[in-house]
This record gives sequence, structure tokens and C-alpha cells, in this order.
Amino acid sequence: MASPDVFDEPGLDDDFCPDAKDGMRHKCGVFGVFGREDAAVLTALGLHALQHRGQEACGIVTFDGRGGTFRSERHMGLVGDNFSEETGAISRLPGRMAIGHNRYSTSGRVVLRNIQPIYADLAHGGLAVAHNGNITNARAIHRELVRNGAIFQSTMDTEVVLQLTARSIRNRIEDRFIDALRQLDGGYAFVALTNDKLIGARDPWGLRPLVLGALEDGSPVLCSETCALDAIGASFVRNIEAGEVVVIDKDGVESLTPFPATRASPCVFEYVYFARPDSIMHGQSVYETRRRFGRVLASESHVDADLICPVPDGGNPAALGYAEASNIPFGFGIIRNHYVGRTFIQPTQTGRQRSISRKHAPNRPLLENTRVVLVDDSIVRGNTSQRIVQMIRDAGAREIHFRVASPPIRHPDFYGIDMPSKEELIASSMTIEQMRRYLKVDSLAFISLPGFYEALGQGKRNDAAPQFADHCFTGDYPTRLVDRDHDMASKEQQLSLLDD
Amino acid sequence: MASPDVFDEPGLDDDFCPDAKDGMRHKCGVFGVFGREDAAVLTALGLHALQHRGQEACGIVTFDGRGGTFRSERHMGLVGDNFSEETGAISRLPGRMAIGHNRYSTSGRVVLRNIQPIYADLAHGGLAVAHNGNITNARAIHRELVRNGAIFQSTMDTEVVLQLTARSIRNRIEDRFIDALRQLDGGYAFVALTNDKLIGARDPWGLRPLVLGALEDGSPVLCSETCALDAIGASFVRNIEAGEVVVIDKDGVESLTPFPATRASPCVFEYVYFARPDSIMHGQSVYETRRRFGRVLASESHVDADLICPVPDGGNPAALGYAEASNIPFGFGIIRNHYVGRTFIQPTQTGRQRSISRKHAPNRPLLENTRVVLVDDSIVRGNTSQRIVQMIRDAGAREIHFRVASPPIRHPDFYGIDMPSKEELIASSMTIEQMRRYLKVDSLAFISLPGFYEALGQGKRNDAAPQFADHCFTGDYPTRLVDRDHDMASKEQQLSLLDD
Amino acid sequence: MASPDVFDEPGLDDDFCPDAKDGMRHKCGVFGVFGREDAAVLTALGLHALQHRGQEACGIVTFDGRGGTFRSERHMGLVGDNFSEETGAISRLPGRMAIGHNRYSTSGRVVLRNIQPIYADLAHGGLAVAHNGNITNARAIHRELVRNGAIFQSTMDTEVVLQLTARSIRNRIEDRFIDALRQLDGGYAFVALTNDKLIGARDPWGLRPLVLGALEDGSPVLCSETCALDAIGASFVRNIEAGEVVVIDKDGVESLTPFPATRASPCVFEYVYFARPDSIMHGQSVYETRRRFGRVLASESHVDADLICPVPDGGNPAALGYAEASNIPFGFGIIRNHYVGRTFIQPTQTGRQRSISRKHAPNRPLLENTRVVLVDDSIVRGNTSQRIVQMIRDAGAREIHFRVASPPIRHPDFYGIDMPSKEELIASSMTIEQMRRYLKVDSLAFISLPGFYEALGQGKRNDAAPQFADHCFTGDYPTRLVDRDHDMASKEQQLSLLDD
Amino acid sequence: MASPDVFDEPGLDDDFCPDAKDGMRHKCGVFGVFGREDAAVLTALGLHALQHRGQEACGIVTFDGRGGTFRSERHMGLVGDNFSEETGAISRLPGRMAIGHNRYSTSGRVVLRNIQPIYADLAHGGLAVAHNGNITNARAIHRELVRNGAIFQSTMDTEVVLQLTARSIRNRIEDRFIDALRQLDGGYAFVALTNDKLIGARDPWGLRPLVLGALEDGSPVLCSETCALDAIGASFVRNIEAGEVVVIDKDGVESLTPFPATRASPCVFEYVYFARPDSIMHGQSVYETRRRFGRVLASESHVDADLICPVPDGGNPAALGYAEASNIPFGFGIIRNHYVGRTFIQPTQTGRQRSISRKHAPNRPLLENTRVVLVDDSIVRGNTSQRIVQMIRDAGAREIHFRVASPPIRHPDFYGIDMPSKEELIASSMTIEQMRRYLKVDSLAFISLPGFYEALGQGKRNDAAPQFADHCFTGDYPTRLVDRDHDMASKEQQLSLLDD
Repeated sequence: MASPDVFDEPGLDDDFCPDAKDGMRHKCGVFGVFGREDAAVLTALGLHALQHRGQEACGIVTFDGRGGTFRSERHMGLVGDNFSEETGAISRLPGRMAIGHNRYSTSGRVVLRNIQPIYADLAHGGLAVAHNGNITNARAIHRELVRNGAIFQSTMDTEVVLQLTARSIRNRIEDRFIDALRQLDGGYAFVALTNDKLIGARDPWGLRPLVLGALEDGSPVLCSETCALDAIGASFVRNIEAGEVVVIDKDGVESLTPFPATRASPCVFEYVYFARPDSIMHGQSVYETRRRFGRVLASESHVDADLICPVPDGGNPAALGYAEASNIPFGFGIIRNHYVGRTFIQPTQTGRQRSISRKHAPNRPLLENTRVVLVDDSIVRGNTSQRIVQMIRDAGAREIHFRVASPPIRHPDFYGIDMPSKEELIASSMTIEQMRRYLKVDSLAFISLPGFYEALGQGKRNDAAPQFADHCFTGDYPTRLVDRDHDMASKEQQLSLLDD
Repeated sequence: MASPDVFDEPGLDDDFCPDAKDGMRHKCGVFGVFGREDAAVLTALGLHALQHRGQEACGIVTFDGRGGTFRSERHMGLVGDNFSEETGAISRLPGRMAIGHNRYSTSGRVVLRNIQPIYADLAHGGLAVAHNGNITNARAIHRELVRNGAIFQSTMDTEVVLQLTARSIRNRIEDRFIDALRQLDGGYAFVALTNDKLIGARDPWGLRPLVLGALEDGSPVLCSETCALDAIGASFVRNIEAGEVVVIDKDGVESLTPFPATRASPCVFEYVYFARPDSIMHGQSVYETRRRFGRVLASESHVDADLICPVPDGGNPAALGYAEASNIPFGFGIIRNHYVGRTFIQPTQTGRQRSISRKHAPNRPLLENTRVVLVDDSIVRGNTSQRIVQMIRDAGAREIHFRVASPPIRHPDFYGIDMPSKEELIASSMTIEQMRRYLKVDSLAFISLPGFYEALGQGKRNDAAPQFADHCFTGDYPTRLVDRDHDMASKEQQLSLLDD
Repeated sequence: MASPDVFDEPGLDDDFCPDAKDGMRHKCGVFGVFGREDAAVLTALGLHALQHRGQEACGIVTFDGRGGTFRSERHMGLVGDNFSEETGAISRLPGRMAIGHNRYSTSGRVVLRNIQPIYADLAHGGLAVAHNGNITNARAIHRELVRNGAIFQSTMDTEVVLQLTARSIRNRIEDRFIDALRQLDGGYAFVALTNDKLIGARDPWGLRPLVLGALEDGSPVLCSETCALDAIGASFVRNIEAGEVVVIDKDGVESLTPFPATRASPCVFEYVYFARPDSIMHGQSVYETRRRFGRVLASESHVDADLICPVPDGGNPAALGYAEASNIPFGFGIIRNHYVGRTFIQPTQTGRQRSISRKHAPNRPLLENTRVVLVDDSIVRGNTSQRIVQMIRDAGAREIHFRVASPPIRHPDFYGIDMPSKEELIASSMTIEQMRRYLKVDSLAFISLPGFYEALGQGKRNDAAPQFADHCFTGDYPTRLVDRDHDMASKEQQLSLLDD
Repeated sequence: MASPDVFDEPGLDDDFCPDAKDGMRHKCGVFGVFGREDAAVLTALGLHALQHRGQEACGIVTFDGRGGTFRSERHMGLVGDNFSEETGAISRLPGRMAIGHNRYSTSGRVVLRNIQPIYADLAHGGLAVAHNGNITNARAIHRELVRNGAIFQSTMDTEVVLQLTARSIRNRIEDRFIDALRQLDGGYAFVALTNDKLIGARDPWGLRPLVLGALEDGSPVLCSETCALDAIGASFVRNIEAGEVVVIDKDGVESLTPFPATRASPCVFEYVYFARPDSIMHGQSVYETRRRFGRVLASESHVDADLICPVPDGGNPAALGYAEASNIPFGFGIIRNHYVGRTFIQPTQTGRQRSISRKHAPNRPLLENTRVVLVDDSIVRGNTSQRIVQMIRDAGAREIHFRVASPPIRHPDFYGIDMPSKEELIASSMTIEQMRRYLKVDSLAFISLPGFYEALGQGKRNDAAPQFADHCFTGDYPTRLVDRDHDMASKEQQLSLLDD
């Protein structure tokens, strides 16, 4: 539920969020495993491999069959810090079933009650739920529920699922949960835990990813990306399909398809920026796809230069592809400082010093008097890119050509990507030439939408039913946007508790 | 709501809880103020004066009219530590209306979500509630609500009031709140806050205290004891009556009496042990009442001795009264160590060292070769008393006579006093002579029940309708005990989330 | 060593230091034990009993014979908090010899390196030292040592002893330590630990107390007050004499008297205010001595009244003595709030609210329309007393007579009592009548100096060689004051490191 | 001073130290600036750029001319965390001169007193010192000093410099400091601060780097690497020469050469592994040098393969050089997880799961069925390399050829590189073929020593007087090793304080 107090969160300075990029942030990773003594350890290892999807907080819930109780450990910060041996957290999570969640990095109004998995004692037993995505009609449902006496414990949209499940009149908990899902619009991948079942669910459009894997002994695993399977030595079984619900219990994996058929359109941003390069997303290597973006980009917008330099680490594969296709040497012109810390000193000097990044440093000897092609995966607000260009320029580069391995981002996402508003998206308000001047580069080019689809290996875009959710480039949203439309209609005033 | 995870809280070692006594603990203090710029400061000062009623956690909620939001600061620990200037907590609590709560000291399963005031966004606005007492049918109501789709966010019985209020079909929030109260059994004093009202409520039996005061400018104040009025320079106006609900808004104080008439029977333990000696409880000075207990006790069970020694600090007034009536000198034979700390070292030696208390020290030169009358306010489990007697004996006292300023406690309370089970109450399983041997004293006497009523200034006890809730001495409980009876009938198994 | 950065420590608000009184603070307690497996536990228990002498920090050093190493645990805060079982501190302190130290409560420039015991690796082994008192020529020695290449690690005067010991040319470590002591002026009680000896030392004037006790198995104990012996079940053996050094090793207790004979003059303030009432100081019960102060005071300055009310807890024994001698009832007119916390909210209102104390509350029903004799142990700056008088007045007292169980304090101490400057001592700049008006009381009286000596049981004061160090009343300082004289001569400017 | 308690520090698991590699760790970075209002900010920015040289702790000392005091902030953890605006640390560091220090990452016996810069109040004023390197006769000097009455406050070898300076009989502080330096053997770069001077010093062999830079306004800067100059917008002026001492005050930079002439031999490991790739070390780009290592390596040990894969990030430049020279594609076959956290869960399963790294993940689609050349900068103990090889093998690589861009490390360093003992160095006890089998690779090759010198651009190695300190490859140590020889002669037993 998107309660008001989420809206006034101060923006993150990308400089200090190791994987944040230019105003866009990952939004959550989920994991679940069934039938293993070491369920909590496996979940922690899986969440660690999914850490790039969310760094702010993490949580694991297990069901302890012996004690008949659910156990929960939810903390601010990284998986590696919170589930180390010395914390003892793992030892407080007995049980052969577990789900886990990474929350994306942000600041401000973040309180423990907003960390997932969330949990409720329902009439027929407990239910824990972890969610990646965003429910686009959560606030509308929330208003209905409150009018009917529901009390919400968090400000997360995820909680509407619990409340709807609690009020369902169906008998079996999986049916109650599906009852709840039917009322949702938006993008989601859920993993949920009852006292004898692990449930996975993916929205009808397949906007958020979810895969099924298996450990060597056959124990099933659910997770956001295949890299989490590699991390625990599990093998990939298949993708959970768009609109599919899987119910895993001691008798195996049951697949349900409770929603009307919809044309699946997975989110392109998993390829552009979100997924880890070593993951396989819908059958394609993310690394290879990004390298193909670079190759197509080179063929579309060749320029004479001395060096192909990635904006690390996101631009690495596309820059390699660009270098291969253009036959210009690849080189590390930007060195990344891994020790960023939470926040940092405000330089007291104005002017040039402001443009000095603490996350990136120029490799001056490589850049001096050079014609550089900078390759990045995307441009969102443009201010980080501008700062990097200035840094490269100050280091002595003679020419700077900026190449972007995705089409211009002109429309916000509403399915779980934390993105600036439309006004802040640089490509929404500027032409390519205006952006070139803003970034102060000698040339600027984005991959074309057809070239992008070609690199994705999908041939021509099917304009009637696009193969991917590419609304950020095109404005074609696959679902209704109830809450957004309601917001536009009325700037509703809400009371809310601003908590400690 | 009394969820299972409350039941396995490990016992507190009284030695380390400055005001805990022999297994019995205070249970919460409440405070509210309306119409003052410095509402949060006044609430913090008031809670500080009520700190003896609960030391584990404290919280304040204000309504900030300008921002249209409720603000909350809830923390583990003491008021003085959490609302100091340096914490900045007060500055985060703007608004002209505030309520606050002290939670009693305990250990174990104490999590932030269980700290009061609790809050909910209801259909017609927010409601914050702070509660002193115990709802004796909370679990029964809780089961009903969960069956009907309610999700509880805490394990506190207080939350049933919020959930019932959320589901009431009445229009005005005070009517919805009263709707909720009508379904409750048990003892309670509530203060509640909406966006324009401060509400106070006291159970129909008046088991838990609540008084109305006024600041010099007339602003109304609600609090558990008059000592909180003194602390903020407010004057006492009147007691909130048993079964009364007061609704305070900008138009003044409205008094409602929504419950059927009941014979009021305030809890005797406020006089015996709970209330601060400088409070006036139902028109009587607590200090003077305790001194009268001592006087009556002296007349009932005189003994030849050299020194009347209080068990500090609870026994001080009664010991003074005993000394005055018996003409035996009063003296501080036990010195209290104020620096107890949270927990402490376990002596490695067995035997005598175990009997060395870290909270009390004997004033050896005063005690040596002396006949001592030890005066205490009450005996609950008896083990602290036994330890003190041993300490006095080791310091060289020749005779030890133990005098108790309340009748023997034979029955547990269910209205908000945290007391050991019936089996652990020493007077429940031993005769006076058995207790005397257990305590290893030369003589032991309790005040008689008639003497106790006489000291309370109420003449003879009305056995048909006792003037006070004296069930701990007599077993006469004023209300139904739904949850207890249910527990006895079935040892129900419940699943629950054991949280971080 | 009194380095400059000690001087700018902000004053403590007495209101928040549970046992601080009106600007005067205790200064440290020491403890040592030899030849016990549980040396660290005993030291922690002993320090806990001495907690009233210092609450800011505490430390224990043991020598672990098996490992051949010294072990140290030094922490900010209370003994009970830092040496609880859960901290594991005790288990990190193996060894059969230990010394410990409580540091007095202050704020500001308090860093870990200033917590005692302090330690140095010397040429012939390690030496740990804990100190109660103040070296009045520490800065002069410090300057000399720095000129000769010494580097100081702390800003404590105690460190000059270590540095002098390090540079002594004697062979045995006890001789080196005594070499160092010979160069000191001022008041001190030291306990020191080598790898096979426990050493105790008391200054030639006996300004600071130190007693020898024995556990049941004969193991020797050194500590500041006898109450620490009671706390561990040890018996009192004798006082360490003024100017005596005791060296304890496996062969027993050796007594040395390395200093020229001096007339002993122990500090009167141990009786007035510092020592715990249950301690026996130089053969006299502290409690009984204070009660005698009250008796003499009553005989010297009787007044008709209804109530003798102590300022708790310091005034308790004197008030009892006063009540007994005057035949006026004793009563607890002031209730002490035990939950003070570190710091507290600043009331936003001016005027009357400022006079509301958070540490004391008036027992209004007892005080209303009453003639009260307030009895306190001493008056230092007078502002706390003024605040208490105002509080009693506001509570309705008809007359207030202030009686003080020590003579007026007109001169600062330089031997380890943390006291305001001469200018701030109210009795230094005002007559009795001026003080009466300042305090706004109906009458004010101090015990006379002859009466004070009479109560101490010492007959007439020997003006040539006073039986006690009573310089705070008389200005008769027993020692040279090298550093003070140097300060007066030159307001020397020093560079110093203001550390984290 | 290398006190015993340094020796038992438990080893770091490289997996969790972002830049640690295979048992070898950076050892400290230093920074100093003179004559700037924003001295502390610049120092923090400089230390941040040098964070790769030490992550355990950081400290800054300034001299505040107005207050006439030194100010210090020293903390465990990263620069970015400790000197952020919200910590307020910078605002507590006024002054126009500052020095700073990063301490290398380790665990165990790390206490605040061991964080640099260290400070002493000397007879003629304060001196703060920060040190990168190791004094090879520190313990011998330390023993001498203690015998003469010195008391050490830390267990750092750096402190002998302070103690020697304190005891020098020279007048000017720079002369006293040089007096101290003359007694030292070993490798060091010092920056030191007095109340009017900034001093820099480099050991006679130039083992540890130190450069001089200038801000735009001419203010001089000293730092370990040029990347810190770039970070604050300063330009490179020159290297501090081996054996040079620079004294910077308001009159400018004075250069002193107090030591007898020695053939400079800077440490090769700055090129191999320590320095940041964007630094220029002795006139050469570190990045380019490493790329040349890769080129020479390719020419020396070519192998047919499909992919050149760096071990990130250390192997990146050499792998690029190898790919260029061999014409085999470069690719990111290993993905680095940036969210490592402090420590991590211990997998409960044995066998294959042990080989799963939490820091590195295989890019499976790129590696499957591929012939891979793994390029790393060095091999120390070999266990990390073995783990990585296993991971690549598990990901499906058909052949694995390991190439190392430095000669085999057979001898430990004693000049400030924290390295395993000789026994633990894999190349010390195994032949190349044995190592190949241990690593389980198809082929293994190191760059040759002549090839290494060629890539360094120094022609043939001068065996009589090597151009670089290459003792880790050759055993040719440039200095005496007093402490090591003493250790070998006698396993001396020392008492020491094991502190909190």
C-alpha cells in the first residue's frame, strides 16, 4: 500500500549506493526453498546472490515444524552482515521451509515494520509473504479495506495481499491467496510460506521474474534470478510462467493458472540494467544480450575513436561488444572506488570540486589526449552521466562520444522499478541534441528500438502486442494504472502516522 | 491480545529491577494533554513522574495540526533517556495534543511493535491509544476477529480495542471507541487521541486509576496518578469515575457514562504498593494510608524490639507508622544501592554468597546485637524477603520480627498487575507458621483484613459488594474471567510468529 | 596529570547524577584482591558496592598467571552494566589477582584512555595502578618528565606515578613504586598490581581512605570502604594507616612506612557526604556519626516545627537524629524519583516550571500547612537547596527551617573531591543571613565546628594539628599546593591534543 | 612497536575483504596538506581515494591555530562512514594543516589506541605522526627505550619514532624527528604535523611511496599515491626521493637529505598489486605497467584458447594486455559481488558447496565448453586461486590455463606488506608443476623475472644493485632485519596487557 509517508522519502545520492544508477534503483529480490534442513542457510546464500536487487534490508522467515511456529529475522542492511555466523541469526531460524527477501536501497522513512517477508496469523494458520514488484491498484484496495475495518500494520503495498487473503471466504490457504491475487493489477513475483506449503506466483504479464530450480536432492527452489541457483549449487528447472501460481508441498510442485490468458511481456529492464550479468533471463544470457546491445549500437552509430571505455560496471558488457564490433581498443578509463561508505563529506569548495565523484576516478594516463567512446547501459536523469563526462574531460580526453545501450527512457515505470518522475527523466523533456549539449559530449547516440529488439533476438517489435514491457521507452503500459489515475484526478489528503 | 509468545517470557530477577518487588511488577502509566504548544514536553515530564509504573519502554504520540499527521516516538528504556534534548525526540513531536505511555519492565519477547501508544489509520481518521490494565476477554475477542479476517500487528491485548473500533458501524470516532469498550471485560484506563479529540476511559469497576487535572491556563490533563500533575505544575480536578468516558476537544470536557451502573471497586494494590507515596488516590494520601497500615499493624501485632527497620523504599511509610505507634526507634537498617544496572554477575561461589543482595546492603553497626522489626508493604513469592532476612541475620541481629502492611496475597490478579501464578504465591500454599519458618524469622504477622479496611478509612468491609477490589486477598473477583476459564477448559495450540 | 583538556569539562547538572549533590561529586573508589580464582568477580562485586564513589566508568585488571599476561576490561558506565554475565567481561579476566576502579561521574572530555586502572609495560614487568585522590604537584612533575622525554598517554594525574616508577633506578618494583610516591604531594589511596604482588598505599595525611579485609579463606582484600567488604562476605581487618604501603604476595602482607611521620588528618567529607552510611570509617559507623551530627544540630539550633524532613538520601540519618533530639516527628516530605536517566528535557516554559525538579517530588499532603525543618548533609553552591526549598514552599509548607549537618563550606578541596571553585561556594561569599535570604527560608543554621568535632567523638579541635582534614571549613590545608600556586603565578598556555 | 599481541591476530578470510587477495593485504596510506581552510575535508577526500591501502580504521589530526590545539578524530571503519557530514567529524577538525591515515584491514586485536595518526605532547610542543611501512628494528629500539623508563601507549612500531623524538636533545622539532629517523631500519613513508610545520619523510631505500602535489592555489600536499591528488583536484609535483625529508611551513617546502646515499629500490608490489591502477608510480602509469605485464606474459607463455578472463579486479589490466597480444577475446567470465559484508554464513553442506565463493560468481553462459585463460596479478597462498579455478571448472570450462602477471612469490616482506609466513607462500614450497596440480589447471605460467623488468621499462635487472626491491621474488633484502634475526635467535617471552 503506497501510504503517503513513502512519498516524501528524500532522494538517494547515487554516488553512495554502490549499484544505484542515475536515479533508478532495483526493487527487491525473493527466494524460497522447501524441504531442507539447511533452509535458512540456503536462503541467506540465495539472497546474498540477489543482493544487487536490494541492499537496504533483508529478511528470512522459516516454519519450524517441530515447534509449530514461524520464525523471522528481519534487519536493515546487507545479507552478509545480518546473517553471519556471529549474529546467530541462522541458528534462530530452524525449519525445513524458508522464504527470504531483499529490499531495495533507499533512505528516510524506512522502519522495521516495512521490511519483508511480512506475516499474519490468519484464521486457519500463519502466512508469510515476500514480494518483488508493485501493485498498481494497491491504494484503491487499501481504501476499500480500511472502510471495512481493516487495520494496516505497514505502509507497503504488499500488505493488501495479506489483508485480502485474511478476508477471503475460501477454505484452502492457497485458494485464499489466489483470491487475493485476482484482485491485483501490476507487476509482482511472490513467494509465500504456510505451515506446510511454499507458494510462488507471477503476475499475468510476467513483469517481474521468478524461476524454479532444484537442488541436487531434488528439493525445489524459487528465486528472482538464476544467479541465486548457481550460488547454492542448484540447477535451473524452468521459468515460472506469466500468470502462473505454483504450490509446493511434500507431494511436489503443483502448477495453477488462475488468471485469464494474457500476452506475456517481461520487463526489458532486467536485460538493460537490473539482472546480474551471469543470470539467464527467459533463456538468454544477460551478459551476452548486453554485449549484443553494444554490437548493434556500434553498427548503428559508429564513430572514429581511440578507446572504448565502459561506465563501470553496468556498461562493461555493452562496451566490450561495441569494441569488438568497431575494432577500437577496450580499456578501463574509469576506475571504480569500492569503498564508498554510506554518505560522505560535502566539499566546501564550489565549482570544479563539485564535479569530482567519489565513486568513480578517471584513469588519467589512459585518457589524456584520447578520443573516447563512453558506453553506458542507460541514461535516466542524466546528472551522473554529466558528472562522469566532466571527469573524463578534466582528465584530458580530446573527444568524448557517449553511446547508450538502451533506447531513451521517456516514461516512468509503475511495476516495481523505483524511478524518478517523468519530469526528471532527461529524455522525456530534451531532444537528443539538447541532451548532447547538456552532457557536453561531442556526440550522443542511443540504440534504436528496432536494434534493441534485434539484439534481444525477438525480430521486429509486435506493436499490437509487444514481446516485452517496453513502456519506459514507448509509453505502452500493459496494465491499468488505477492508483496513478486516481492520484491525477484528486490530490487526496490523507492522515498518517509518521513513526519513529 | 495475549498471544502465546507472551507466555514464555523469562522471569525478571527482582534484584535488578529498581522498583520490582518479589515477583510483582507495575503495569503501565498513561498520560494525555490537550491544547498546549508544549504538549510533548509536558507528556514527557508526566511520564517521567509515572516512571515507577513501567520502566521497560515509553512512547508519545502527538497530532500535528499543521502537518495533519500523527507523530510517534516509541522506544525501549526510560523516559529520561529517550526524551532528552540531545535525542531530539521532542522536536520530532510537534502538535498541541499528545498522549503517552510507560510500559512495565520485563525482559525477553519485547519488540518495538509492542510498545504503546498503538496507532491505526481508520476509515474516518487516525486513532492512537495507550492502555493501563488488562482485558480479561481479549483472547476470546481476538479469536473472533481473526476468524473474520482481522490481522493483528502486535501481541498486546490493547490491540483488540483498535480492531473493534475499526469495525464499528457508528459514525463519530468516540462512539466507535465506546462501541469497542462495551465488548471488554477487565481493568483498564485508556487515553486515546484522534485528530481533534483527547479521550479518557476507565473500566466500569474503576480497577485502574485515571485522574483529570488542569494546567494554570486551564488546559486539561489526564493521567494515572496525581504525582504527574505535580510534576508539570497542574492542579487536580477530579477522578475519572469508574465506567466514565471523557471526550476532550476545543469545546471542553464532555463526560459520558456508556456502561450499566456497577459498584466501583478500585484496586487496593495502588495503596499497598503501586502508587507513588506522594500521589493522592481517590482522595487519600497514599503515604498517609501506608503510615496508617503501619499504625494498625503495630496495634495488632506488637512485639518488644529495639529497632523498626523498613524494607526500603516500599516499607518506609508503614515502618514510620509502626515506629510511632509502638514507640520503638525507627532506623535505616537496610541501605539501598541505587546503581543496580541491568543485570549482574553471577557469583561463582555457592552458599552464603548467594544470599548477598546487590540491591540492599545491611547497616551492620545499627543491626548488630539488636532486636529488629522488619516492616514491608507486602509479601508475594517470599524469596526476596527470605534473602533480606538472611542478610539482616548475617549482620548480627539478635531477633527478627517480620511485619507486613497488607493481608496475605493468596490469589493472582487478572487486571493488569503482573504477578506470579497462584502456585508461586507463598501465602497461597503456606500457613503463617510455615511462612515464618521459610523466612526464618522469630515472628511473622500480616495486617488483618478488617484492620486493613480500617486503615483505608472505609469502616467494615461490605462483603456483598466490597468497597475495593481485594481479590488478591479474598478471591472475590469483580468481573468474569473469560480467557482464564477458556485456558482452563482447553490447552489450545496456536501457531504464532516468533519475531526478531 | 591535570592536562588542560580536563578544565573545560562542562558542569554536570546535579539533577541527573543520582548521587551528585549541589556541585560536589565523589571521586573514585578502588578495590584489590589477592589469591582467589574468582578475583575478577569479587572485584566487580566490590566495585558495585563502591559505585556511589564514581559512576562514570569502571575498570578491572587481572594478572593471568597461566598466560603470563595482564588482562584489562575498562568501560564507560556502571559496574552492573559492564560486568554482567551477558557481557562476558568477567570470563575475559582470568587470574588470581585483580584490582579495580570506579571513576566519578562527569561528562564531556571523557575518553577510554582516561579510565583506570592504567597500565604500563616496564623494564622488569607490567604494572597496573588504580587511584582515588588527587596529586597536588602532578603538573609540576609532568612538566619535568616531558622535558626529559616522557610521553604521556592520558590526561590523568595518576599517570605521573607510572612514569616516575618507569624511571626509578631501584630494582624491586615495590621500591620503584615507593620511589615514585615519595615525590608526590596530595591525597591518594592506590592499589597496584604486578605479576606477583598486590600493593596498597595511602598518602601520609590519610586524606583518602583504604582498608584491609580478609575473605573467609584468609585471602587479603584492599578497598576504599568497608561496605565493599560486606558485599563480598569479607571481614574487616584494619585501616591502612596514613603513609603506609602494604605489599601483598604469596607470603602474606608486608607493611612499609616509607614516608616521614606526619600527623594523620583524614578527610571529614567521608563522614559528611561521601562514604556509604553502612561503612565504618576509622572505627566509626558513618550512619551513627551522621545521626549524631543531627542530634548536635538539634541541640544547637532548635526550632518549633511539625515535621523533620530529610533531603534524601544524604540528609536521612541527620534528620533522624534531629527528630530524635527535638521530639518532632520525622517524615518523608520529599520523594525521590529513582528513574532519572542521563539527561532530560528542557522545559519550554519559564518561571515556576524551572523550579520543578525531576529528581525530587514534594509529598504534598504531608507538607501542606506545615512547619517543616529541612535537614541536609551540606550546602555547596546552594542552587539545588534553593530549588528544593521552592518546591516545598509550592507544596504548601507554612514555615521552612533549613538545618545543615556540616559547617559552612568556604574553601575548595584539592585532594580528590570534585568541587566548584571558591567563587561558586555559597558560604564563601555570603553570610548566614544572606544565604537564608537566597534560599528563601524562615531560618537557616549550620552545625558549629566545635559541635561537629564533638559529634565526631574527637573532643575539641586541635587547632595546631587538626584531627581531621577540615580545610573546606577552615582553610587549613595539610599539604603544599604546588600546582595551584603555579597556576596563580602564571596563566600558562599549553598545547594539547583534543582527542576524539 | 611490534608487541606480541599483534602476532596472534586471526587471519582474515579474503572472501570478505573486498580488496584483500589471497592472504596479502595493503598496509596503510598517508596524506597531509598545509595552509588550507578546508584542510580536514581535503584530507578526508584524499584518504577516501587511498582507501584501497587500508580499510580497517582511519584518522585525521589537524592543528587549530586559533585554539592553539591539535584536534583528532580516529575511528574504526571506512573514511566515507566516519567523515560524513552527519557524523560532524569534519566540523570538529578546524585548522589549516592536517595529516591523515588509513590503516589496513585486519581483525582481532585492533583497539582505538592503535589507530593513527598517533600524537604526543613533547617538551617543545605537540607532534602527530602517520606512518605507512614497517620498522625492521622497532622491537630492538623498543626494548632499549623501556629499559630507560619509556612507557609505550600503543603496540605500533610507529610509536618508537615518537619516543625517540621525545628523547632527542636537538632543539628544532624537525631535527629531533630526523634524529629519530636515523635510528630506524626498514621501509616507511611518514607524514608528521607540528604546530607550524608539515613534515614528510621517505626511507633511504624508497620502499614505501610518497609524492608531493600542489592544489591550484599552490598549497602543498603529501600523499601515498597520485590518485589522491586527482581526487582533490591537485596536480602532481614530484616524488619525494628515497631518503628525503621535506619540511613544509609558511615559507615553503625545504628538502633535507639526512641519510647517507643509498641505491633507491622502490617496492615492486606497488606495481603488481598495491597501487590503484589510475596512479602514476615513479613516472609510470600503474595501469599501463600492468597491461605490459600481460603483454609480456602472453609472449612468454602463449596458449590456444577461446577466452581471456581476468580474476577481477586485480587481473583486469594484465588480462587486457594478454588479450591484445594474443588476439584472443577478452571477457568477464567472473562476476564480482560487491555486497560482501563483514563476514558470512558457514555453509552447512560439505563438498562442492565449500568451493562456492561469495565474492566471485562464474558467468556460466560465457564459460561453458570454453578454453579459458585466467589472468591474475599474483599468487600468494594459492587457496583463493584454487577456489576460483574450481568455480570456473564447475561452470563448464573445457580447459583452464592460469597466467600470473608477476614472478613466483617465494620470500616474505618485512617492510609493511602484511603477508603470510614463508611456509604459507605456495611458491616457496612447490615447483611450478606442483602448483599446477594443486590448482588443478591445464597449464600454469608466471611472468619471468627478466620479462617483468622489461615490462617495468628498466631493461635488465642490475643484480648487484637491483632497481627495485624485489626480495619477495629473489630473497635479496635491501636492509638489515634486526628484529627478525633476534626472533630467530631467541623465542623471547614478553608480558603484555591484553586490553579491552
